[in-house]
Amino acid sequence: MFRFPSLLLSRRLHRRKLSSTPSRPPSLPLSHPIYLIWGSNTGVGKTLVSAGIAASSLLSSATTPSQFHYLKPLQTGFPADSDSRFVLNKLRQLSLLRNPNVHLSSSHRVLNVSPAVLDTNLLPGEVGRGHSELHCKTLYAWEEAVSPHLAAEREGLAVQDSVVLETLGECFEYVVERGAGRERSDVLCVVETAGGVASPGPSGTLQCDLYRPFRIPAVLVGDGRLGGISGTISAYESLTLRGYDVVAVAFEDHGLLNEGPLMSYMRNKVPVLVLPPIPRDPSNDLMEWFESSHRIFTNLKEIMLSAYFERIKKLQDMPREARDIIWWPFTQHKLVPDGGVTVIDSRCGENFSIFKKTEVIAPQFDACASWWTQGPDAIMQAELAREMGYTAARFGHVMFPENVHEPALNCAKLLLQGVGKGWASRTYFSDNGSTAIEIALKMAFRKFSVDHGFIVDCHDDTTNERPTELMVLALQRSYHGDTLGAMEAQAPSSYTGFLQQPWYTGRGLFLDPPSVFMHNNTWNISIPEGYVWESQKGQSITFSSSDEVFHKGRDKSELATVYSSYISKVLSRFKESNNVGALIMEPVIQGAGGMHMVDPLFQRVLVNECRSRKIPVIFDEVFTGFWRLGVETAAELIHCVPDIACFGKLLTGGIIPLAVTLATNAVFDSFIGDSKLKALLHGHSYSAHAMGCAAAVKSIQWFKDPCSNSNITSEGRLLRELWDDKMVCRISSHPAIQRVVTLGTLFVLELKGEGASAGYGSLYARPLIEKLREDGIYMRPLGNVIYLLCGPCTSPEICNQLLIKLHRQLEEFYGCKN
Amino acid sequence: MFRFPSLLLSRRLHRRKLSSTPSRPPSLPLSHPIYLIWGSNTGVGKTLVSAGIAASSLLSSATTPSQFHYLKPLQTGFPADSDSRFVLNKLRQLSLLRNPNVHLSSSHRVLNVSPAVLDTNLLPGEVGRGHSELHCKTLYAWEEAVSPHLAAEREGLAVQDSVVLETLGECFEYVVERGAGRERSDVLCVVETAGGVASPGPSGTLQCDLYRPFRIPAVLVGDGRLGGISGTISAYESLTLRGYDVVAVAFEDHGLLNEGPLMSYMRNKVPVLVLPPIPRDPSNDLMEWFESSHRIFTNLKEIMLSAYFERIKKLQDMPREARDIIWWPFTQHKLVPDGGVTVIDSRCGENFSIFKKTEVIAPQFDACASWWTQGPDAIMQAELAREMGYTAARFGHVMFPENVHEPALNCAKLLLQGVGKGWASRTYFSDNGSTAIEIALKMAFRKFSVDHGFIVDCHDDTTNERPTELMVLALQRSYHGDTLGAMEAQAPSSYTGFLQQPWYTGRGLFLDPPSVFMHNNTWNISIPEGYVWESQKGQSITFSSSDEVFHKGRDKSELATVYSSYISKVLSRFKESNNVGALIMEPVIQGAGGMHMVDPLFQRVLVNECRSRKIPVIFDEVFTGFWRLGVETAAELIHCVPDIACFGKLLTGGIIPLAVTLATNAVFDSFIGDSKLKALLHGHSYSAHAMGCAAAVKSIQWFKDPCSNSNITSEGRLLRELWDDKMVCRISSHPAIQRVVTLGTLFVLELKGEGASAGYGSLYARPLIEKLREDGIYMRPLGNVIYLLCGPCTSPEICNQLLIKLHRQLEEFYGCKN
Repeated sequence: MFRFPSLLLSRRLHRRKLSSTPSRPPSLPLSHPIYLIWGSNTGVGKTLVSAGIAASSLLSSATTPSQFHYLKPLQTGFPADSDSRFVLNKLRQLSLLRNPNVHLSSSHRVLNVSPAVLDTNLLPGEVGRGHSELHCKTLYAWEEAVSPHLAAEREGLAVQDSVVLETLGECFEYVVERGAGRERSDVLCVVETAGGVASPGPSGTLQCDLYRPFRIPAVLVGDGRLGGISGTISAYESLTLRGYDVVAVAFEDHGLLNEGPLMSYMRNKVPVLVLPPIPRDPSNDLMEWFESSHRIFTNLKEIMLSAYFERIKKLQDMPREARDIIWWPFTQHKLVPDGGVTVIDSRCGENFSIFKKTEVIAPQFDACASWWTQGPDAIMQAELAREMGYTAARFGHVMFPENVHEPALNCAKLLLQGVGKGWASRTYFSDNGSTAIEIALKMAFRKFSVDHGFIVDCHDDTTNERPTELMVLALQRSYHGDTLGAMEAQAPSSYTGFLQQPWYTGRGLFLDPPSVFMHNNTWNISIPEGYVWESQKGQSITFSSSDEVFHKGRDKSELATVYSSYISKVLSRFKESNNVGALIMEPVIQGAGGMHMVDPLFQRVLVNECRSRKIPVIFDEVFTGFWRLGVETAAELIHCVPDIACFGKLLTGGIIPLAVTLATNAVFDSFIGDSKLKALLHGHSYSAHAMGCAAAVKSIQWFKDPCSNSNITSEGRLLRELWDDKMVCRISSHPAIQRVVTLGTLFVLELKGEGASAGYGSLYARPLIEKLREDGIYMRPLGNVIYLLCGPCTSPEICNQLLIKLHRQLEEFYGCKN
Repeated sequence: MFRFPSLLLSRRLHRRKLSSTPSRPPSLPLSHPIYLIWGSNTGVGKTLVSAGIAASSLLSSATTPSQFHYLKPLQTGFPADSDSRFVLNKLRQLSLLRNPNVHLSSSHRVLNVSPAVLDTNLLPGEVGRGHSELHCKTLYAWEEAVSPHLAAEREGLAVQDSVVLETLGECFEYVVERGAGRERSDVLCVVETAGGVASPGPSGTLQCDLYRPFRIPAVLVGDGRLGGISGTISAYESLTLRGYDVVAVAFEDHGLLNEGPLMSYMRNKVPVLVLPPIPRDPSNDLMEWFESSHRIFTNLKEIMLSAYFERIKKLQDMPREARDIIWWPFTQHKLVPDGGVTVIDSRCGENFSIFKKTEVIAPQFDACASWWTQGPDAIMQAELAREMGYTAARFGHVMFPENVHEPALNCAKLLLQGVGKGWASRTYFSDNGSTAIEIALKMAFRKFSVDHGFIVDCHDDTTNERPTELMVLALQRSYHGDTLGAMEAQAPSSYTGFLQQPWYTGRGLFLDPPSVFMHNNTWNISIPEGYVWESQKGQSITFSSSDEVFHKGRDKSELATVYSSYISKVLSRFKESNNVGALIMEPVIQGAGGMHMVDPLFQRVLVNECRSRKIPVIFDEVFTGFWRLGVETAAELIHCVPDIACFGKLLTGGIIPLAVTLATNAVFDSFIGDSKLKALLHGHSYSAHAMGCAAAVKSIQWFKDPCSNSNITSEGRLLRELWDDKMVCRISSHPAIQRVVTLGTLFVLELKGEGASAGYGSLYARPLIEKLREDGIYMRPLGNVIYLLCGPCTSPEICNQLLIKLHRQLEEFYGCKN
């Protein structure tokens, strides 16, 4: 008489191995609607709402049979309490009562229980013959009727967050499998949480944080009692403060008209549904209540379905709409292939959640660190989001000149104690790296002009007479931003031609720096033409480790003298016709120019040469700052300090734009005078905006605190090594690879390529990149150079997974085992 | 035997007039600690906590007598329930029990009750002889034991939010008065809220929103029951999401170890205190409970005191610390007077909350709109804050090229349907106005070069050969931003000399535009030298209203021909040696150049002249866009459209930096080709960042929706007139005034000044500005030009108050009645 669906035949309680990294990161299928049912408190009727939705799904008079999946990931008080069983029983009762013609096939499974719970107490799954199916599952159950974290601690069956997610992901896969061939709306799955939205799960993680990687759309069961308006609104805010979309609020009527203020608060956002009072008499079988709330549940189900369809449609339409109206930066629109637009539904820590054509929202590791900005893992992102909400509510934006607010002041203090320690005395805030550079140049030129006697009287400066022509000393392959001033300080490149900016002239003396890279597991220095080094002409210089490259002892090497002579020669050649008003360089790594590592010894010698000539030194740390290279500031790697330094990107953890230019007091003093016209008249309307500064404060502290960042070594000055030695060695020895650079959070690889295959315009890496994206790694090449960037908090295990995938794809692509 | 403090003698129930604008905006005194007591739910023991704090304040064995003020702003269920009376009674009992040597003088007042409550039911205030004083006040009371909004509706005594705040402000003044001469820590005031944090007040406004203008530091009474972890965390999040600082969480122990997860969540933020279980027996007088929790309350009081002292110290130190390490934009540090640094503790809608030397946090209307960025009132700011929390949690930041996410797409759609309607097809996001301009110039130059045949092959563009020298056509007094490219497009000024940016050359043809202003209640056009207008030489042109100035019918006037000839003459003069690659101008109002209004007819003629010569037209709407001038885009005022337009500032409502450059499809097409090198290679790492786009979506919709913005006229295309005609007339006729301009949210006034008194470097307006700041208006001059900016939602009543204050100060300053 009873038929068991094949997958449900086995009642084996399989306890999963508790691994720290899920074998597969969680994906959310979109083939059918899946919802999370949250409660604004415990005991507000989540299970009744789940059952009500199930009833309106399964027991309607619609002609097509349907499936309903009820999942209860965390059940305490088991087996005495079992929400799964309750739903099952109620649906059986209702099915008999309401629509005897509808055949309901139902099952009930419990996957994992704590040792305290006896197997014999489990209710066996029963499946009735028929077309419509109800599948109820409890994923983890404990005996004591307390919060899961307490029960788990007391009874065993401690379970890690990643394992809960993995199990839930498998249940979703079953929903897809079971629903194959059915209409979208004929299958519905609800996941009922335990307690309130911020009640802890078994590991202690709050459930609203625990389930976040899926970002499943939500139904919130509100509270109709006295105080329930507040509880419902606060619960709603906790959900939205974690990026959830709540599609409906439903609550039991207690006669207090709570719907008024709730509807007013939710206006234009979320429908509010009022359920009839629930009989309190335990002997009441609630059949009457379900009947009286039938229409409301049908309404709720319709809301859930239409929100689902709307989401699907939006996700499907987005690529086309974007192509029609968006103008992407650094993108040749004609070369964006069909299907080449990535729909990013959300991000959780280091991972994007991508909408895939296979109708799934899947994670993709953001190995670009979203244009080199990202630092947070999921926990830090949640913390920053709360900080953003608080700061926007407290300050919004408040203007800065001659004013002070807490986030700006705290941020300035942390900057001077951190990346500016030992040299900087002043902080000048702006909006992005490019503006920070423009400010730095203005500072440097003024300092230079004052030091070299170009400025006598500043009171009338509108004549536009130029006492001298100033230029910068900079490096080939440098990149300092896209605004004209920043561009002028960089050598001619693909970014600077007439086609891009007709006003660019390149007002610099551009030195060709020696570069460092790894190949065949050996570090090499490549010295360009123009350097006079008789004793080693034609020979390459190698190092066995990057530590050797950075060693300060190299100051005494012959190479130091070679560098010094080269720099002096170039500077002397231009001395008469021009004045070099500033040195500007990216310390150690030249980012957009192709991720080249410059010999740190060369940069140190260069700084010293400039200092002896009273040329102000600017470090462009927009890319390199804040642990990007494994230290808080790349200045530490080259063992010298600048007069001015620019920071951006990771400064705020990557959550919001903000930049800062730090300067010495001597630089600051060159702007002091009796006239406002002598002040630095540069400022953007959002200078030192509170949200940016607050994010920076939180991030600066977070990254360097071993309690929040387990990558910080005990001395607190260095990140531990994130890239596995062996994998780096294998990749650097691969025949398809020109060079490798690893430093801090950065792993760079240049593919061998010649002619059209090389350079920024090259599309050479594209097919490889596409494969890697399919494999769950989001990358974007710089021509034939590709790179992986993790965050300062990313675990070496995750980094290693990236390297393994990269290596696998390299082998598949270039067919060369090594 | 009993002594009544003088101010308490009268028991008159004074019901305040319900006015829409408080006579005095609320200030929070800092002479003594004041705290808000919030509950994470109703019935969690707020009043017991208040009483406990009172006991540890008043009944300690300290030698100095102290004062405790207990305020209950909203009491329902009165007089049966009266938390005020409860605190009073418990303290009397405790005083007898605990420390008979401490003499407690106590009073109890009820200020306003609903008509349903009989006066005879009021408990008379009693004051015992002694040194320590307890003052208990109920501010508003209703009979029914429901939420205040329901009680108010049913019983009368509807009371507006502003009135509740005003009453509370008066109570604070009493605290200051009564505590005069006492040590800071010898006076403590707690304000106990009703129900949960988001329970509605009498007007329906949630209490967490209602009390926000004071931003009183908070103590949260948590929930120790099952589900209480969640409720406590959510309540905490609702408070922080409104910018409150919570200094401690205290909750009643129910044996569920809720402190574990709460402490873990609050780690490094807020101390969590556990109170012993409260006896449930109604006959229990709780004396034993108070005794057993005595140490915890002492601890809590100490936490409150030390947080208070810390805050005071921080506020006092901030100006000095800021002067030491901050480098302000556009600020001559030497000229910042002692005491000239403004400490902004927070903002609420259009008002800063300023820390004043008189030890008070007071509102100051931000008439600079924080460098022209601000739009939100308090309600919109709260809404934006929630949106920021949600978006940061959902997206953080995700990179943009070839990607799409919901906020960016929605924002792009709204831009093209709004400010770009009828002409724009593409949206290019960047970080601020200056970068948006740099992008616009690159777009325009490309379009021009393609149209005029300067670009043939784009595949090799690194040669830096310049087919031609391009320049812009721009206006004198224009200002387009501080980065070099934007600066090059503006005429020489104080901002552009060698002192500021040695690289500036001014690559423009700068026309001298006719300007419009009001004087003596008449609109005038001032035509500069160089225009040939024989028929009216030397005569001034006047208009009776600004509508006339903007009237499209002026196209047929003789002046149109005069303008056209002038433009043709200038353009023809430069045609051979240079190529004008773009027109760039701020439509209608030139902002940073001194808030000059350009004759709209001139700008329309200019656009037409350029279009006929295939010169791309750029509108710099960074300042003028999004209702700043009373229309969504200033292009509407000059009745013509650009090829490219830049927006920033108000784009996000002013909460977060974001800018956008809109362009036509024809402009976009000039970047399409087979090579990536032909694409627009300009982008910032935070391009189209999700938070910025989400804020823009919310703001664009909010400003133009009559439901959220009551200044929108029924047609939805125009803001109603915000500046009172009569006041504008009076000010424009004042002898000290050179000119006035009013348009949309802008009111400009130029003070008569000559020589050193005029121009950007002038300090002429400074004393006036200082007086206005004392009077509660925050302004910052542009030399001898001062202005008031409100938001698109600011009520005309508030604007009028500003004008009245301004006029009063003008009269006091310049002693001329008119």
